[in-house]
Amino acid sequence: MNDKTSIILENIRNRKSVRNFTGEPVTKACLLALLKAGMAAPSARNRQPLAFVAVTERTILDAMGEGLPHTKMLFKAGAAIVVCGDTTIGLQEGAIDLWYQDAAAATENILLAAEAMRLGAVWSALYPYPDRENHVRKILNLPSTVNPFSIIPTGHPTGQDQPRDKFKAEKIHWEGW
Amino acid sequence: MNDKTSIILENIRNRKSVRNFTGEPVTKACLLALLKAGMAAPSARNRQPLAFVAVTERTILDAMGEGLPHTKMLFKAGAAIVVCGDTTIGLQEGAIDLWYQDAAAATENILLAAEAMRLGAVWSALYPYPDRENHVRKILNLPSTVNPFSIIPTGHPTGQDQPRDKFKAEKIHWEGW
Repeated sequence: MNDKTSIILENIRNRKSVRNFTGEPVTKACLLALLKAGMAAPSARNRQPLAFVAVTERTILDAMGEGLPHTKMLFKAGAAIVVCGDTTIGLQEGAIDLWYQDAAAATENILLAAEAMRLGAVWSALYPYPDRENHVRKILNLPSTVNPFSIIPTGHPTGQDQPRDKFKAEKIHWEGW
Repeated sequence: MNDKTSIILENIRNRKSVRNFTGEPVTKACLLALLKAGMAAPSARNRQPLAFVAVTERTILDAMGEGLPHTKMLFKAGAAIVVCGDTTIGLQEGAIDLWYQDAAAATENILLAAEAMRLGAVWSALYPYPDRENHVRKILNLPSTVNPFSIIPTGHPTGQDQPRDKFKAEKIHWEGW
């Protein structure tokens, strides 16, 4: 395995849910790098139905945190990205809507890019929780055609959060169950 | 941005859907590295409900390809990984099942690890298509408590498949819609 391969696999292994932030801001340049990573995720039938809201303003981060019981880390986050599905980007006729699978892949890409950039980040689910979706929809002024999937608070990590080793050999089945 | 960061972001950007394989086998060591990457993905409430079937046997790869109209690349793939949700790994009482979000994140991690290892791979959806799920369930002898989510054919790329630039600035909304 060469050096580049090891660096990338190590980043995947080191990604962690970071819930403790120093409170320092996250630059727009950093957010743009995260968003580029999100858009590079695969999309079923290459539909690319996602849209992203990036938030850095303290009052908006705090307002979102007020109504999201599991996302209180927004109060100390430097920024947040809300990954959304845009239903105005049409499906092929007869196709089943896989927007949430695309949104999950984009969310994971953003988390991995944050780890690479020495930022902390955490995936907090909005879909399929109508109360959470509505709270964020209202604050961010999302059109009714746009559905929030996840909110990713991000910031500079305090160092308290560490990766877990989740490998379990018994979860692997060779050639069949 | 330092070298390591660039290498990781470049890998995210270079990941592509590889549908053309040379036919060479993929070693179990490589598959294990892919599976480790899959298990490192985040899991809602840390439930870790996933299980993985890794297939290298030609007859099984071909049999799966026969019944999957969009996954004919299995005929030339060196191996495949089926990402599954194991419903015997219990939910917290009252919690909504987010197994498919976990499975999507694990699928994306596997694709990124394949890119890092100079393997090709492609995400082919099984869930929520009952005919595809049943076909794979039968061949792999999946228990009724285990639900297939995606199948990832992998192999050595011919080089025909190239990454797409999917970045669109208009998909980003700053501070609100």
